[in-house]
Amino acid sequence: MIMKLVNTISEMFPTLGRWINKFVINMLVNKSRHRPHPWSTVHDYVSWTSLTDKNWSARHLPAKTLNPPKQDDAIIDLFKRADGPQLCDKSTCLFPAFAQYLTDGFIRTRMPNKSLGEKDDPVRKQNTSNHDIDLSPLYGRTGAQTDALRLNSETKGERGRLKSQIVGGTEEYAPYLFENGKIKQEFEILDTPLMLDKFAEYPDILSKIFAFGGDRANASPQVSMMNTLFLREHNRLAKEIEQLHPNWDDTRVFETARNTNIVLFIKIVIEEYINNISSGFKFRTDPSVAWNAPWNKPNWITSEFSLLYRWHPLIPDSMKWGGVDYPTQATIMNNNLLISGGLKQSFIDMSTQSAGKIGPFNTSDALIRFEKMAIDQGRLVQLASYGDYREYVNLSRPTKFSDISKNPKVVSILERAYDKVDDVEFYVGMFSEDSIPNSPLPELIGIMVAVDAFSQALTNPLLSEHVWKQETFSSVGWDAINTTKNLESIVNRNVAGGVSTDDFIGITRKGWKSV
Amino acid sequence: MIMKLVNTISEMFPTLGRWINKFVINMLVNKSRHRPHPWSTVHDYVSWTSLTDKNWSARHLPAKTLNPPKQDDAIIDLFKRADGPQLCDKSTCLFPAFAQYLTDGFIRTRMPNKSLGEKDDPVRKQNTSNHDIDLSPLYGRTGAQTDALRLNSETKGERGRLKSQIVGGTEEYAPYLFENGKIKQEFEILDTPLMLDKFAEYPDILSKIFAFGGDRANASPQVSMMNTLFLREHNRLAKEIEQLHPNWDDTRVFETARNTNIVLFIKIVIEEYINNISSGFKFRTDPSVAWNAPWNKPNWITSEFSLLYRWHPLIPDSMKWGGVDYPTQATIMNNNLLISGGLKQSFIDMSTQSAGKIGPFNTSDALIRFEKMAIDQGRLVQLASYGDYREYVNLSRPTKFSDISKNPKVVSILERAYDKVDDVEFYVGMFSEDSIPNSPLPELIGIMVAVDAFSQALTNPLLSEHVWKQETFSSVGWDAINTTKNLESIVNRNVAGGVSTDDFIGITRKGWKSV
Repeated sequence: MIMKLVNTISEMFPTLGRWINKFVINMLVNKSRHRPHPWSTVHDYVSWTSLTDKNWSARHLPAKTLNPPKQDDAIIDLFKRADGPQLCDKSTCLFPAFAQYLTDGFIRTRMPNKSLGEKDDPVRKQNTSNHDIDLSPLYGRTGAQTDALRLNSETKGERGRLKSQIVGGTEEYAPYLFENGKIKQEFEILDTPLMLDKFAEYPDILSKIFAFGGDRANASPQVSMMNTLFLREHNRLAKEIEQLHPNWDDTRVFETARNTNIVLFIKIVIEEYINNISSGFKFRTDPSVAWNAPWNKPNWITSEFSLLYRWHPLIPDSMKWGGVDYPTQATIMNNNLLISGGLKQSFIDMSTQSAGKIGPFNTSDALIRFEKMAIDQGRLVQLASYGDYREYVNLSRPTKFSDISKNPKVVSILERAYDKVDDVEFYVGMFSEDSIPNSPLPELIGIMVAVDAFSQALTNPLLSEHVWKQETFSSVGWDAINTTKNLESIVNRNVAGGVSTDDFIGITRKGWKSV
Repeated sequence: MIMKLVNTISEMFPTLGRWINKFVINMLVNKSRHRPHPWSTVHDYVSWTSLTDKNWSARHLPAKTLNPPKQDDAIIDLFKRADGPQLCDKSTCLFPAFAQYLTDGFIRTRMPNKSLGEKDDPVRKQNTSNHDIDLSPLYGRTGAQTDALRLNSETKGERGRLKSQIVGGTEEYAPYLFENGKIKQEFEILDTPLMLDKFAEYPDILSKIFAFGGDRANASPQVSMMNTLFLREHNRLAKEIEQLHPNWDDTRVFETARNTNIVLFIKIVIEEYINNISSGFKFRTDPSVAWNAPWNKPNWITSEFSLLYRWHPLIPDSMKWGGVDYPTQATIMNNNLLISGGLKQSFIDMSTQSAGKIGPFNTSDALIRFEKMAIDQGRLVQLASYGDYREYVNLSRPTKFSDISKNPKVVSILERAYDKVDDVEFYVGMFSEDSIPNSPLPELIGIMVAVDAFSQALTNPLLSEHVWKQETFSSVGWDAINTTKNLESIVNRNVAGGVSTDDFIGITRKGWKSV
């Protein structure tokens, strides 16, 4: 209720509203130590490598040896979805779709290539991130990958475009990756999609894999859907920019469309996605908040961030595509679901189903092995305890198991698994917490997400003081930035016939009211 | 005189002194726009590449097409040393030695490999810099290079050391690069020394080339001398750290010695080198000045910085080594001069000779071709005019040629070369300026050096808020940092018998007094 009042006042008095927005963001970011972090996963002490080599993941707290759980097997019971999905009353299935798309762009733990003899240690301590929100799932991680994805044509009407194809007369998608069962030569430079080997015998799946910039962007039709939306938006912007600036060459049109597209994405991150996470305060995209902020320091994704973002409980056991229910397992890498319904229907489908609730006892069987991998990852990089991290962000440190949760089933499993509350691991503790009102996230995750989200999104160079101006984006791009408020408006301009007031496309459920 | 008073007050009242130091540094850095710079040499407009790909050089001002000079040939006459060297009354020959050693570490314009068909455009628009003061001439630019330079031994008494050899019983140097006329296999990963091909027929020169981290670190015996000093200091620190922490492994000893050595170097940069450039104010190394500063943004070396640092007039026509006068040309890549005198005598030799004066008509014949290359470089990257840059850092914009210099010979050449004062190029204008009292640098260079020096040295991650503490350096390293004030103290602990009060080793001439 107080938050509603604050939001109303902020809207009525814009200057005051900007000041409050700045105050709240600073308050959140200041809950954690500012970068540069002294440590990374390379050494347990400060070294020039730990301070500069971003192939290793940064860390909020130094490596620590915890007492091992007394009964390790018990822990996984905390995650297993026992009595069917618990649903979240606030978020639609666009929430996990967007979260996955967003985080796949910069939370990029390196995966060992076991066939080359690579081991989890050290490979999983490393990452392949650019450490920026740069829409790398769309544009690729490297300049050479971007080149492969671009049309690279100086012909009028084609400048600045990403390669694409039209399916079924009106639906624009990225080109397919395969031709005659082999990856097309022009796309060999792209990172190979993860899990591809599991589908070697499924030509229906393989033939519909898109040539995307990201190796995780084909992982589910929801992520493909997001990437397709921003592909269409890029090409739409390029078309408008080219028409406005007929003398600009292919590269300038491309770069200006990309500048705009990245900022549109960041606006959605803050104003639709983070506002869904927020327990009430309505954040706005004000780049100037960061310009002189002491926390505006070079981004560097941490090990902790990569773990706290594994929101498997968001995924229901099954989801409807075009009215038909598919078990989650059957949707993995299955772009047919997206293609048969088309982009608009897919967005409507995902935004009219509830996401699961983040917390204990709510991970689908199809994903439970990823919980085990997450716990192992925390041990590999020797994270400090759950209690240490609560203390780190100025939350109360638990002194007994029942401080973590009021749920007696949770407490009983924690007691079975750990000798002392100080032994509870970061990953286990944070997903055991009770939920808090009006937010889809429990307390510790919520705070740590906010710290990293604002301190890494608002530091984007496109939002910096001497770049944040119309000429960086062209007047067409600047207009798009200033008028775009949510995913719906981007979908609206990129599907045949647009969307009507009856079509609901949103991350927060239609009609959701805070308590 | 005022500055002397300020310095005296600063020393008497430490808190006030810290505040004044902070105020002066902020005032200087704020003369220029803060990073991130919108442009780099890759595009003439803002692009994601221009904002993120540090292989291209950043730029303070966007690309601009200037009117070409009406008589290009005249320009080089501004640089030619006509009547013998004009000497600087403030700086010794340690000044150019240190300046070259410092800047070779991060001003690293890429050089086209003409034998591979590489062209000046785009290669010379790119760089191979890490954009940090990281002692890369000593440690290499990459982890693999650092590995090749390390002893990599877990044996007690050898941990954390860089490879070295003892010459003549007491003098420690880096190993030689060549064996039987070929680069040793262990050092093939190092960047090949520049200009090596010019000495293919000079075994006396080649056999004394050191295996250094930097491709320019063998360029002159002065630079070799600096690198040798910091090599010895590294190994001295490693020895002390190993003794204090007998349980630390090779890598931890190495990294802790490197942390300390880099900070010692930065201290010399600020407290001896920049204080020699300063026209009077005595700067001190206070890392906290940068912690919350709005200008503390990721470093990125600019095209302008790489040009304004070409201080060829500092080099006399000849220099004495061990009492014998050698023409500059004969000293290039000639480490024999260093080795025959030894480290201490070489430092004494360089610090008891005057450097040349920066300004017009004072570049040695041996270096005049580098002036031509610098002018070409400015044209290649299309720098704005000299007047534009004065305006950029809030200095008066010249409206007539005589605003640049009071020297009629300079004015006459500028009038001959350029149609209008607005056509005067950045490089030509800044080296045509009159000198200013008490500083070895003319006005525009002085300001731009200060802006970049402070905004890029104090942002070093080792000086950051949560890293700047004893445990990052060990107590031995922390002690060294707190007690080291100048090059002399580092030389003193790294030469047999140390240095006495009669030995003068300094960048600023003995007995120099400000006017």
